[in-house]
Amino acid sequence: MKLLEERILKDGVIKPGNVLKVDSFLNHQIDVPFIAKLGEEFKRLYADTPVTKILTIEASGIGIASVAAMYFNVPVVFAKKASGSNMDKDVYFTKIYSYTHNKVNEVVVSKRFISPEDKVLIIDDFLANGCALEGLIEIVRQAGGTVAGVGIAIEKGFQGGGDKLRANGVRVESLAIIEKMDSQSKTIEFR
Amino acid sequence: MKLLEERILKDGVIKPGNVLKVDSFLNHQIDVPFIAKLGEEFKRLYADTPVTKILTIEASGIGIASVAAMYFNVPVVFAKKASGSNMDKDVYFTKIYSYTHNKVNEVVVSKRFISPEDKVLIIDDFLANGCALEGLIEIVRQAGGTVAGVGIAIEKGFQGGGDKLRANGVRVESLAIIEKMDSQSKTIEFR
Repeated sequence: MKLLEERILKDGVIKPGNVLKVDSFLNHQIDVPFIAKLGEEFKRLYADTPVTKILTIEASGIGIASVAAMYFNVPVVFAKKASGSNMDKDVYFTKIYSYTHNKVNEVVVSKRFISPEDKVLIIDDFLANGCALEGLIEIVRQAGGTVAGVGIAIEKGFQGGGDKLRANGVRVESLAIIEKMDSQSKTIEFR
Repeated sequence: MKLLEERILKDGVIKPGNVLKVDSFLNHQIDVPFIAKLGEEFKRLYADTPVTKILTIEASGIGIASVAAMYFNVPVVFAKKASGSNMDKDVYFTKIYSYTHNKVNEVVVSKRFISPEDKVLIIDDFLANGCALEGLIEIVRQAGGTVAGVGIAIEKGFQGGGDKLRANGVRVESLAIIEKMDSQSKTIEFR
């Protein structure tokens, strides 16, 4: 998606260790009028596919998932990291390794919110190694639901998580796929 | 707001210790088509007030804030709990005590995202004792910005946080204010 690639080139900051900071529009400040265009694009891409629910993970996926849900006209469920004190005990549960924070997060979704009838679109801000997505797909499968597909704002293509999922038959639509980025020369190449 | 009161009576679950669970539509599953009506109502209430940015706090405020931002046509900034490994070091910082989890959260917002020119509408899912809101107001003041007002889905009126803020001159618009609730008789009275 040209619009997103241009925004990444304009406002993205490349840090050492293949970190791309886009916190000015995607995941700390959320430029909602701009993100709405991404939501609309997800809807265009998945226009042929029945979707009953959008699943994401806290915290940075919630904004883009909620805005996208305005176009799909469905609820959002977000997986929670670790069980809060007034969290349901009857939950789907998985573990997700976070490279960014170098720790394992226990992730839960209440069993009340995904059922075998659900056709779930998984939306997240980033896709790198794919650990978070594999965890969310695992939760949909525990519920007996169907993964309608995955919608990602920015995929780090060079980290291979997206292609691994595609090879396993999961439909993954990423609005921008970074093939290469370099913190020295400050350059980004898109697929 | 009649519509929200009815939804609370229909789907809210009262737990001992004045806990109201509304995780089926507000803060674990987010019923986005329904929440959109709350966002529209915030816009109606604040139609006379210039708003340049919406501020909320992760994780449960992000969904309602993002949906509301669709009607205000402004960005959302969400305060983050504790400094992540690739978090900006140049941040506004405050501490917020969480009664729900019985701990103090360190909360940060990058200095890049609130400026003295900003007229900030603070949106959150719940208002009880007001600790979270006081922290967010403190962050806006550190930035030299103006608090345009506060928009809350559900206020627990009997916990006094909202009235304390109003007494201090903050405009607080809550779409449902619970005056009394009882986990034995399963009753809720609205103000």
